[in-house]
Amino acid sequence: MKAARFYDRGDIRIEDIPEPVVAPGTVGVKVAWCGICGTDLHEFMEGPIFIPPCGHPHPISGESAPITMGHEFSGVVYAVGEGVDDIEIGQHVVVEPYIIADDVPTSVGDHYHLSKDMNFIGLGGHGGGLSEKIAVKRRWVHPIANHIPLDQAALIEPLSVGHHAFVRSGAQAGDVALIGGAGPIGLLLGAILKAKGLTIIMTELSAKRKEKALSSGVADYVLDPSEVDVVDAVKKLTQDKGADVAFECSSVNKVLDQLVDAIKPTGVIVIVSIWSHPASVNVHSVVMKELDVRGTIAYCNDHQETIKLVEAGKIDLEPFITQRIGLNDLISKGFETLIHNNESAVKIIVSPDLN
Amino acid sequence: MKAARFYDRGDIRIEDIPEPVVAPGTVGVKVAWCGICGTDLHEFMEGPIFIPPCGHPHPISGESAPITMGHEFSGVVYAVGEGVDDIEIGQHVVVEPYIIADDVPTSVGDHYHLSKDMNFIGLGGHGGGLSEKIAVKRRWVHPIANHIPLDQAALIEPLSVGHHAFVRSGAQAGDVALIGGAGPIGLLLGAILKAKGLTIIMTELSAKRKEKALSSGVADYVLDPSEVDVVDAVKKLTQDKGADVAFECSSVNKVLDQLVDAIKPTGVIVIVSIWSHPASVNVHSVVMKELDVRGTIAYCNDHQETIKLVEAGKIDLEPFITQRIGLNDLISKGFETLIHNNESAVKIIVSPDLN
Ligand SMILES: NC(=O)c1ccc[n+]([C@@H]2O[C@H](COP(=O)([O-])OP(=O)(O)OC[C@H]3O[C@@H](n4cnc5c(N)ncnc54)[C@H](O)[C@@H]3O)[C@@H](O)[C@H]2O)c1
Ligand SMILES: NC(=O)c1ccc[n+]([C@@H]2O[C@H](COP(=O)([O-])OP(=O)(O)OC[C@H]3O[C@@H](n4cnc5c(N)ncnc54)[C@H](O)[C@@H]3O)[C@@H](O)[C@H]2O)c1
Ligand SMILES: [Zn+2]
Ligand SMILES: [Zn+2]
Repeated sequence: MKAARFYDRGDIRIEDIPEPVVAPGTVGVKVAWCGICGTDLHEFMEGPIFIPPCGHPHPISGESAPITMGHEFSGVVYAVGEGVDDIEIGQHVVVEPYIIADDVPTSVGDHYHLSKDMNFIGLGGHGGGLSEKIAVKRRWVHPIANHIPLDQAALIEPLSVGHHAFVRSGAQAGDVALIGGAGPIGLLLGAILKAKGLTIIMTELSAKRKEKALSSGVADYVLDPSEVDVVDAVKKLTQDKGADVAFECSSVNKVLDQLVDAIKPTGVIVIVSIWSHPASVNVHSVVMKELDVRGTIAYCNDHQETIKLVEAGKIDLEPFITQRIGLNDLISKGFETLIHNNESAVKIIVSPDLN
Repeated sequence: MKAARFYDRGDIRIEDIPEPVVAPGTVGVKVAWCGICGTDLHEFMEGPIFIPPCGHPHPISGESAPITMGHEFSGVVYAVGEGVDDIEIGQHVVVEPYIIADDVPTSVGDHYHLSKDMNFIGLGGHGGGLSEKIAVKRRWVHPIANHIPLDQAALIEPLSVGHHAFVRSGAQAGDVALIGGAGPIGLLLGAILKAKGLTIIMTELSAKRKEKALSSGVADYVLDPSEVDVVDAVKKLTQDKGADVAFECSSVNKVLDQLVDAIKPTGVIVIVSIWSHPASVNVHSVVMKELDVRGTIAYCNDHQETIKLVEAGKIDLEPFITQRIGLNDLISKGFETLIHNNESAVKIIVSPDLN
């Protein structure tokens, strides 16, 4: 079968590899669509980061480069392994793409996503969604209703990132949320918050993304920091109170500073961005305003509720799909667009069946 | 009556001023003991900071320098103003030393300590504990049992800072707490945590304060970062899990970094220190470990429970009183010790009756 395999930085090949073995306890999934993630791009441009380099096998998967990529995918069950009796061939599914040790230590308790050596299917081994087929442990396979289009379903993974950030924030319906950065993560998080009944203020510099934030129905207000004073504007929109909750989704230190200034006393700031450099936080404000700065990473028991929101029609994922390509065009059309024309794209999704 | 009045940086005078008027709704308190706080020292050395400078009256108190100092005090009721019918002459009391507008805006809700222009009695006006007498709004006067020695009672104010930090942390009995810095604030916070059933690990460089942390019974373990690797040592003490909760009480950035590294995933770090410079936080760890970094300032409905802990004998404040002086010696013995020999002192308390 065809698969996109990461060999090294700048070296991803579309190759023919053997079909996966649907071992006991696993489910065989025929991939329908797989999104390209910022993380995939980082691996291509600056990696390997999550991907275990050739000769350095991951402690849980035992695999190293070349590694099949793709962790944001939907598909249809084509086979079930021995002992799997609660899912049937033909079922539409998405995958929560974890590689996690079976014996998660008690120190992380229910937080399985924080366990030692955690990695992701499509980065750390165990196959990937940028291929025709994959066999996945039953635990990580989530059935979805047939009426969710499979292309939109490929976005449930990054949407679950947004759901987890929402859970971490403790935000309530009626709250005003300030989101710094309207990239794929900021937008999908915004879609979750909107579905949960919050009012959404987004900040963004890029014209196309400002437009998407409004046209997708996610943002109630979009502020451009090159045009307005974000802190003043938020105060005005909230009768001088400040935002109830804020989310950093740009990995820009200045944006984090704005969130600290624009949030109300006792507010919660959730940091969603991954930072490659230490960032400075105005700790004086954190103390004097009694803020709560929380990190969020990936998801943990979030797929179920995320899928329900999509099934119930509370979130329409179509506006966030900006391109559909075939697997053979992964680099030439997919990565190249993201590298050179990132702001025009939200999610580019890839099908092994498209030419 | 005698009072210590702040005129300007480096200029605090012991003067004779008129006795306060015990107006309707206020309580006249004859001061027994008043602690000297790090904040008082900052005002003396680098101020005015909280103190409204001469000619710039505070918006709520309407006062500016010269201002009577002292916000950590105990005393005995000698008069009650009109309309005060729930407290009697002779009652032992401590004061929650707030200057807060009567109409706290709804944006801060119950968090009265976060309201606009909040300041402190003994810094922003309304008299101070470094004097013979003071009249205080009934709301801020807390009765204490007669069996609490009045000298120890003067420490209930900074102890309430510790209680508020404990509440902010959400810590539970059985948790392991890591406290960075064993100054007065770290020690008194430790006393609260100990009373609440936590195991306490403190880090400290100063020999005298390490000794105090142990001899006072507060710390179960004291780590000296010049002698051991704090992160390794905490991991060892917690079977590789990391501390459940951590408190920054040194205002040293490196200490904050150690707390981030030594805490378990999903742990809570409370920042108690006041910072005069922006501090850098390893946001990558905050995200990847899903930490929760919370600020805490002063107290808010904490005095009641703090007083109960002391009344019940769960906290002995005697070990933290390192010197008793008269008001006339405030600068020569009090401030001078704190400036030149800070580590030998925990709390220096001042009596207007001592010579
Ligand atoms: N915590 C997690 O589990 C998780 C999961 C996936 C991605 N991420 C991270 O989330 C972050 C966002 O991901 P993404 O794919 O949306 O990235 P992105 O780079 O596409 O989006 C960032 C957006 O911020 C905008 N921006 C830049 N400067 C700004 C400013 N001054 N004010 C307002 N907006 C500004 C950019 O124009 C861009 O649209 C990244 O750091 C990514 O690594 C985290
Ligand atoms: N949040 C609040 O409401 C509130 C109230 C009062 C005081 N404070 C602040 O709390 C902080 C502590 O107050 P304090 O009076 O105890 O101050 P302090 O300076 O007396 O104590 C700090 C302690 O940290 C120790 N220290 C320094 N470097 C260290 C290191 N590398 N590792 C471990 N320990 C180290 C010092 O030896 C000292 O004992 C100050 O910043 C103060 O302004 C906050
Ligand atoms: Zn991703
Ligand atoms: Zn104080």
